[in-house]
Amino acid sequence: MEKDCVHVFAPATVANMVCGFDVLGFALDEPGDEVFIRKVDRPGVHLVNVSGDNGRLPREASKNTVSASVMSFLNHIGQADIGVEIALHKQMPIGSGLGSSAASTVAGLFAVNTLLGNPLSRRELLPFAIQGEELACGHGHADNVAPALLGGITLIRGYDPLDVVAIPVPQSLYASVVFPHVDVPTRDARQMIRSKVALKDAVTQWGNIAGLVAGLFSSDYELIGRSMHDVLIEPTRAILIPEFREMRRIAIDSGALGFGISGSGPSVFAFSTSQETARKITSVIQAQLTQQGIDSNGYVSGINAGGPHVIKNSDTND
Amino acid sequence: MEKDCVHVFAPATVANMVCGFDVLGFALDEPGDEVFIRKVDRPGVHLVNVSGDNGRLPREASKNTVSASVMSFLNHIGQADIGVEIALHKQMPIGSGLGSSAASTVAGLFAVNTLLGNPLSRRELLPFAIQGEELACGHGHADNVAPALLGGITLIRGYDPLDVVAIPVPQSLYASVVFPHVDVPTRDARQMIRSKVALKDAVTQWGNIAGLVAGLFSSDYELIGRSMHDVLIEPTRAILIPEFREMRRIAIDSGALGFGISGSGPSVFAFSTSQETARKITSVIQAQLTQQGIDSNGYVSGINAGGPHVIKNSDTND
Repeated sequence: MEKDCVHVFAPATVANMVCGFDVLGFALDEPGDEVFIRKVDRPGVHLVNVSGDNGRLPREASKNTVSASVMSFLNHIGQADIGVEIALHKQMPIGSGLGSSAASTVAGLFAVNTLLGNPLSRRELLPFAIQGEELACGHGHADNVAPALLGGITLIRGYDPLDVVAIPVPQSLYASVVFPHVDVPTRDARQMIRSKVALKDAVTQWGNIAGLVAGLFSSDYELIGRSMHDVLIEPTRAILIPEFREMRRIAIDSGALGFGISGSGPSVFAFSTSQETARKITSVIQAQLTQQGIDSNGYVSGINAGGPHVIKNSDTND
Repeated sequence: MEKDCVHVFAPATVANMVCGFDVLGFALDEPGDEVFIRKVDRPGVHLVNVSGDNGRLPREASKNTVSASVMSFLNHIGQADIGVEIALHKQMPIGSGLGSSAASTVAGLFAVNTLLGNPLSRRELLPFAIQGEELACGHGHADNVAPALLGGITLIRGYDPLDVVAIPVPQSLYASVVFPHVDVPTRDARQMIRSKVALKDAVTQWGNIAGLVAGLFSSDYELIGRSMHDVLIEPTRAILIPEFREMRRIAIDSGALGFGISGSGPSVFAFSTSQETARKITSVIQAQLTQQGIDSNGYVSGINAGGPHVIKNSDTND
């Protein structure tokens, strides 16, 4: 049954997964963003509240990725004449490399689709989420929005046409995520990357991504760890992240299978095979940063198999 | 029980599998090479016969990849003082892009290991086979010797250290292979490849290899087909192969999941989901070549899950 008001959570995501630049990503259980959406008589998409962003996100409905992608969605399904009010409550850091804009966009799209009785499937929402990324980041990548929307681990096999493949999640895989409070704008982090690479290094990279996918399919945790190396992008991006090598060392020493940059950084993540180890890794990495006078957010999370979910679905009068 | 004389078959292989340059390969049921080996009193490794090569391979034991790698093997296991006679019967074309030297080398190593009661495991034979490739081709790649030795589909995840991963073979996967009688030396075909590539193209390539591995693990034949594209190597190498685009077109029109160059060519191969379709594809490709006045060898094969096998294991007096 359709409800008047929907409250949705959508997860943060870790793109690239070390050796899968621009094609792999996975969803976290936490953190994430929340969107409230409700039907109103006044036609149009109204962004009535944005919180938790320290005033950094656009308030104008056509410029904010959440409301703008909801507008595209409503246009597409021929309901541009209805009225909705949207409130975005950011529960995760912006510019962290954890797919902040993707979480917001996906929460908005999942919320409006739920509000209207699911006229589209999750996969059909993906193109609107990619449009939202284009608005927010200047490029329509899917490596954050795909796992945020579909959950689990996703592969963007290709864009022409868009081909998203679900990769199985091994049962005992946990993520440690740490966001150091240093500023690495996504655009800059992308511009630092060379447009030409040595074929030899590209071969190393695709040997590793093939190994990672094989390890995920076969729950071979050692193979997953052996494959988590990036010879192309990380050497450049790591320069922008303080204590990167030291964080890797202590993560591996504490039992991590592998360690790397989340998206374009500055967040880093590690995989391990127990929640206890994942907790320890997050803790030692944060302690290392604290010692250097760098604040951070730390998370310990499973791989979020479900993607976004409805927190509350109610009539306005409930 | 050890026998005095062993007769072994080792298979031809298809390296690269279109999007997995230098890291993926699979073994064929046919063609392949045969090696006879027997213990003799006269110490040393004696290459007593080479047939089926039109005199193209070295007859000197230290220069022929089969006898040279058997020597390395005997040195390694501390049996350099025994005597063996080797006969190599090539049953497959040389310079075809089907792993001809790998098939010979693997047959020799598998034969001598069997002769001596398997002192090494198959995986332990791999470094000797790679040495053999270095002697035969000038570079120690493993993408032909690994599937020739281990069977099935193999991924060379990395070389430092050597990490070979077995990829599962979907049940209904058949290969059509055609060797057009044109000369494309492996060294030349490698030298044509650019040493720098666009990162954008590398990303396309590793999206595809990840998709191919996912498709093989999940027996998703459509995904296997969608992933079999090579934007980096094929455009250059295909120039050396007559009728390449036309062969692809008719293979796909005849039901192939995907089509591409085997190794460095000039052989081409296609995957399909039935032996009947595979037969049809081999036949239409060969007909196309015949029409252009080009002779060819055609093969229809399953994926060889077992690798090399003993044809006959006997005492000299049997």
